[in-house]
Amino acid sequence: MWVHTGNSPTNLFIKKYICRRWKQGQEKMADPWQECMDYAITLARKAGEVIREALKNEMAVMMKSSPADLVTATDQKVEKMMLSAIKERFPSHSFIGEESVAAGEYSVLTDNPTWIIDPIDGTTNFVHRFPFVAVSIGFVVGKKMEFGVVYSCIEDKMYTGRKGKGAFCNDQKLQVSGQEDITKSVLVTELGSNREPEIVKIILSNMERLLCIPIHGIRGVGTAAINMCLVASGGADAYYEMGIHCWDMAGAGIIITEAGGVLLDVTGGPFDLMSRRIIAASSRALAERIAKEIQLIPLQRDDEE
Amino acid sequence: MWVHTGNSPTNLFIKKYICRRWKQGQEKMADPWQECMDYAITLARKAGEVIREALKNEMAVMMKSSPADLVTATDQKVEKMMLSAIKERFPSHSFIGEESVAAGEYSVLTDNPTWIIDPIDGTTNFVHRFPFVAVSIGFVVGKKMEFGVVYSCIEDKMYTGRKGKGAFCNDQKLQVSGQEDITKSVLVTELGSNREPEIVKIILSNMERLLCIPIHGIRGVGTAAINMCLVASGGADAYYEMGIHCWDMAGAGIIITEAGGVLLDVTGGPFDLMSRRIIAASSRALAERIAKEIQLIPLQRDDEE
Repeated sequence: MWVHTGNSPTNLFIKKYICRRWKQGQEKMADPWQECMDYAITLARKAGEVIREALKNEMAVMMKSSPADLVTATDQKVEKMMLSAIKERFPSHSFIGEESVAAGEYSVLTDNPTWIIDPIDGTTNFVHRFPFVAVSIGFVVGKKMEFGVVYSCIEDKMYTGRKGKGAFCNDQKLQVSGQEDITKSVLVTELGSNREPEIVKIILSNMERLLCIPIHGIRGVGTAAINMCLVASGGADAYYEMGIHCWDMAGAGIIITEAGGVLLDVTGGPFDLMSRRIIAASSRALAERIAKEIQLIPLQRDDEE
Repeated sequence: MWVHTGNSPTNLFIKKYICRRWKQGQEKMADPWQECMDYAITLARKAGEVIREALKNEMAVMMKSSPADLVTATDQKVEKMMLSAIKERFPSHSFIGEESVAAGEYSVLTDNPTWIIDPIDGTTNFVHRFPFVAVSIGFVVGKKMEFGVVYSCIEDKMYTGRKGKGAFCNDQKLQVSGQEDITKSVLVTELGSNREPEIVKIILSNMERLLCIPIHGIRGVGTAAINMCLVASGGADAYYEMGIHCWDMAGAGIIITEAGGVLLDVTGGPFDLMSRRIIAASSRALAERIAKEIQLIPLQRDDEE
């Protein structure tokens, strides 16, 4: 039974407490994944600290699939740190991480809430101290992207996107350029880490066709996630690439769509997170125009054994 | 006649004043161009402010030599501002500026102290708000680079190099990576603004040959000056390009050599500031190795009429 005893300090405190918990409950009902997103931002910042610290020291570099596909102990350490933190806090959630997959885990996307993580997007940059290195966290439920966090840790830029709530960089709202005319566009892409001559030829001939449309130019800072965030910021008009993985796209993908951009497959069909290819553009018209110029390279999907 | 009257406050002030002026005189004798360099840094910072301000507003874009070679009113305004400031302070000095040359001035390098200026290196980036835009100032006497200032104004990074005194970024000393092994290197270059199919083909086939050596990767942020400063910082191992101009290289050239790097012509011969081509590397071995792979494109020199 409640008895009104006036606004004594104790009562005011209790009222405030109840009010706050009720609000938190409402928010949780309104957005069941906000807690995960807040946690992802905290994790990305911690991971960024570890990476910045590692940049001060010597590092041993190992090769993965090709002489241009590198990994360091820091990639593995940061992924382990994030994996165990997520498992402790959200034990029922699933996890796909670049280094876990490299170590033999399968990357099959189910309907379960799934954290898709690249501990260091831009490992070659990291090895060289080329100053664009990102921690990428994508969060997917029912195979749909719910939020994304990309922390460009040398620049100290925290990019975030939450379904239906917009995209931000260090709390500043992001908006794509909206460019529809390819002849007035700057694209971002990468040459990739595959060094097989036929693959390199296709990648370069795609660039040639696009350049000679003509377009304003092509740039690339060496990480898919930061390239995509440059599109979300309006600095570049579109990004395309083949041969990357779900952990390269899952964080920045929703940052682009929440900034008003469009994701397509390089064939012009719907974007598929496990397909290893993407066009992320500031408009559908631009994405479709790019798709017309792209010759495909053969790729094994991320969810193929 | 000097009469010793003890250390009264007035006398102390006079002594200090004489001492300071004497020191300044000594410094000036020791480094006759320090005053110019200090002035260049002030000018670059002011120009950067104008550029940052202009980024907030709409801008009208004009075409120069090709659909990918752009210019804005801000390029012209910033160059005029710098030119008049230099003419007022150092009326006997010569001046080569990108926009003055575009407006019909000749760019012939004499032995006279010469300021070589690009008001906005990365105009296409500037137009798109792609966040790498530099003010570049090179200072050359007797055809030798004396100092260089490159202000990456969106990042707020001030790169400087003074002959015999090292290179710095925001007062932090710069050092190239020293990498000699091309298979362990990251290169920076650009696709350029020329869209003639034969030229584009050569540029891409040069990239193809280098990539397949193999190397770790190729990056490009869209400005020659910042690409070169990334080499000076040790983040990239070498930069090469053909088709750029003296104002793209004069500022960052000495920043690279003062950071321990090497400038060569793309033929492997001595670097020539007016040749429109460069290899800027962290070691001579790497520069020579790159030169071996480069097929030349036909270019008119900067000092040809």
